[in-house]
Amino acid sequence: MTDFTERVLQARSRFEAMCAKPVSLDITRGKPSAQQLDLSLDLLTVLGPDDFKDGRGHDCRNYGVPDGLPEVRALFGELLDLPTDGVVLGDNSSLSLMADALSAAVLHGVPGGSGPWRDSNAYLLCPVPGYDRHFGLTDHLGVGMTNIDIGIGGLDIESVERLAASDERIKGIWLVPKYQNPVGYTLTLEEVRALAAMKTAAPDFRILWDNAYVVHHIDEVLDPVANVLQACEEAGNPDRVWVFGSTSKVTFAGAGVSAFGGSPANVAWFRKHRGVRTIGPDKINQLRHLRFFGDADGVRSHMKRHASLLRPQFEVVQRVLETHLGGGDFAHWTQPRGGYFVSLDTRPGRARRVFDAAARAGVALTPVGATFPRGNDPEDRNIRIAPTMPPLRELEQAIEILATAILCECSD
Amino acid sequence: MTDFTERVLQARSRFEAMCAKPVSLDITRGKPSAQQLDLSLDLLTVLGPDDFKDGRGHDCRNYGVPDGLPEVRALFGELLDLPTDGVVLGDNSSLSLMADALSAAVLHGVPGGSGPWRDSNAYLLCPVPGYDRHFGLTDHLGVGMTNIDIGIGGLDIESVERLAASDERIKGIWLVPKYQNPVGYTLTLEEVRALAAMKTAAPDFRILWDNAYVVHHIDEVLDPVANVLQACEEAGNPDRVWVFGSTSKVTFAGAGVSAFGGSPANVAWFRKHRGVRTIGPDKINQLRHLRFFGDADGVRSHMKRHASLLRPQFEVVQRVLETHLGGGDFAHWTQPRGGYFVSLDTRPGRARRVFDAAARAGVALTPVGATFPRGNDPEDRNIRIAPTMPPLRELEQAIEILATAILCECSD
Repeated sequence: MTDFTERVLQARSRFEAMCAKPVSLDITRGKPSAQQLDLSLDLLTVLGPDDFKDGRGHDCRNYGVPDGLPEVRALFGELLDLPTDGVVLGDNSSLSLMADALSAAVLHGVPGGSGPWRDSNAYLLCPVPGYDRHFGLTDHLGVGMTNIDIGIGGLDIESVERLAASDERIKGIWLVPKYQNPVGYTLTLEEVRALAAMKTAAPDFRILWDNAYVVHHIDEVLDPVANVLQACEEAGNPDRVWVFGSTSKVTFAGAGVSAFGGSPANVAWFRKHRGVRTIGPDKINQLRHLRFFGDADGVRSHMKRHASLLRPQFEVVQRVLETHLGGGDFAHWTQPRGGYFVSLDTRPGRARRVFDAAARAGVALTPVGATFPRGNDPEDRNIRIAPTMPPLRELEQAIEILATAILCECSD
Repeated sequence: MTDFTERVLQARSRFEAMCAKPVSLDITRGKPSAQQLDLSLDLLTVLGPDDFKDGRGHDCRNYGVPDGLPEVRALFGELLDLPTDGVVLGDNSSLSLMADALSAAVLHGVPGGSGPWRDSNAYLLCPVPGYDRHFGLTDHLGVGMTNIDIGIGGLDIESVERLAASDERIKGIWLVPKYQNPVGYTLTLEEVRALAAMKTAAPDFRILWDNAYVVHHIDEVLDPVANVLQACEEAGNPDRVWVFGSTSKVTFAGAGVSAFGGSPANVAWFRKHRGVRTIGPDKINQLRHLRFFGDADGVRSHMKRHASLLRPQFEVVQRVLETHLGGGDFAHWTQPRGGYFVSLDTRPGRARRVFDAAARAGVALTPVGATFPRGNDPEDRNIRIAPTMPPLRELEQAIEILATAILCECSD
């Protein structure tokens, strides 16, 4: 204990000096770095002057083929564990496809349901901490949100099963199945099977399976994740899952290709509703990605290069946090094997104080509460760290300041 | 009259021969031809290997700048008569931006309104014949549709004014202000001023100004069209209009850039709602278009090349229709100076018969009724002809068959 007291005293004096000469550092956003984006530079020039037809001879410059190019659907299908026919492509944002699906559910209902979700006071289960834009979209469409814990110990699957079974207003669950944002947790095979097979009071229950980080490892190898569509089929619930994915953090963050997938009934339903708002996605950009990657193995090799760039970034976060906070109970944090974030929990009721202190020393953190529905972290303890974007020295300095702020604010 | 009798008799015998040896021709869709698409081939290669920053040095490969690149907003602003700040860019589909705006109005309401449109049994005025996807979107969102005539004589503005003034459920009007789809009509300055100034029972009335063909002339020069935002401002109704546009038939049909525009209040409102469903549009494709065009004059020169390709296509339609149907009252049709269609009215109650007859001879026409809400042409007379896509000889042959079918079906 003397050791910790000493550590805190030193931190206080160090933090005073930090605040006297504030820096200007930003670790708020899960953005790829310029070096990561450079890995995809060839995408800018990969199409030759007369390269605009896909393998079947379709002129990708014109309207048509609203589901997207079959070769690219197959590529996404391989990565997302879906048959080619089970994939419909979108433009640069899988969030938009989630909005399309959820809007259609709210306004019109889904296969196997009894009507529009807006008529049934619908709720979605929201694992927290989670992705702010999932929650923002849900709230915007008038769908209620029920928190489910997905802390450092993983998903609270018992609560999911209990709530889904007992309340027919619970229409689904948001999940980032692999390297979850922000805790980095990957669902186990058993958990996926349980989600696929569990009894739900709502016959039209949906797993919103946002596989945003399906190929985004930091470690040498990828975590495996269960084939959710297959698990749903085997459990007799083939329509239970909507799958989403994109190349947003694979190639260019805002100029990639996205995909929706699921059972034949879900795909037909999605196609119908999406077709009302667009003639079809950008097939030239699909062709560009096809030429750039070649196939799914091309994506996998490419992601190894990303991992090489990301590993030192995540390592420095672990090293600095461990140096300052290790062995104490000032904070707990994740050690993700993939994805874009480190999730840190302070002692309850301290996150906002840490945020303010870091700001005084010039470090911008993701707003406290951003990882919870409506920005409300009921325990005021979660801080999301985004290590990918800043140069390594700046990242190290920012985490030094964060750790010092935690020592100051979580020690009394 | 003897002349016409003879003409019809000859047509019947000719048509029998046509049906005996049916062709396989398609004039259903307003798609650009391969030659038109070739005009934009440089778009595939216009970005160099390290050309990914805009004029302010923003890295277009990453997230950020959700309104789109300022230089491209300025370019669209010049073409659509909007200030740069009054433009927000989208991806490849302006229809998607219309869906975003109309969804937000239905679910949340608009600036100056008293709540979500879905709570007020909202209707939109729908000039007919019109664009099927406007009607499909409106219907999909649960908004009612009231037909307004925009036949060969132009828009029935008196009915618009009367209905808008007297019924607060009427929340807006769909308009393609220039070279309207399908009649080719361009609104006059007086009509635009009247629409901007008219009294509306709904305080949150909106003109959905889909300027899809703003630069799409067939004649040597462009029709002028009034500055609608300015007209609305001068009339004291600055928030009355939402402007939409895209490069869909300027560069590649499915791989262009789209734009939403309007007053500061409408832009802020649109930005907020659109921000829920996407991190932002594809800025690399915006940069590509900027490099390809340079500026708005670059777009105008480019569209002259389109016009040169389109002119013979539209001329052959006029020539063949005039040859067979001229001087009679079998049908009336438009002679557009721009846009993508010729609109033809048969005698009442005959369009479906003509459609079926043309199909027997192997010519696919746009389904009868497609240009009306819910596919219902109450007079069964409108046929939309799309002359842009087929090779000239095939187009000529298809129009020969159509004209012959009309002579057969509209002469008793």
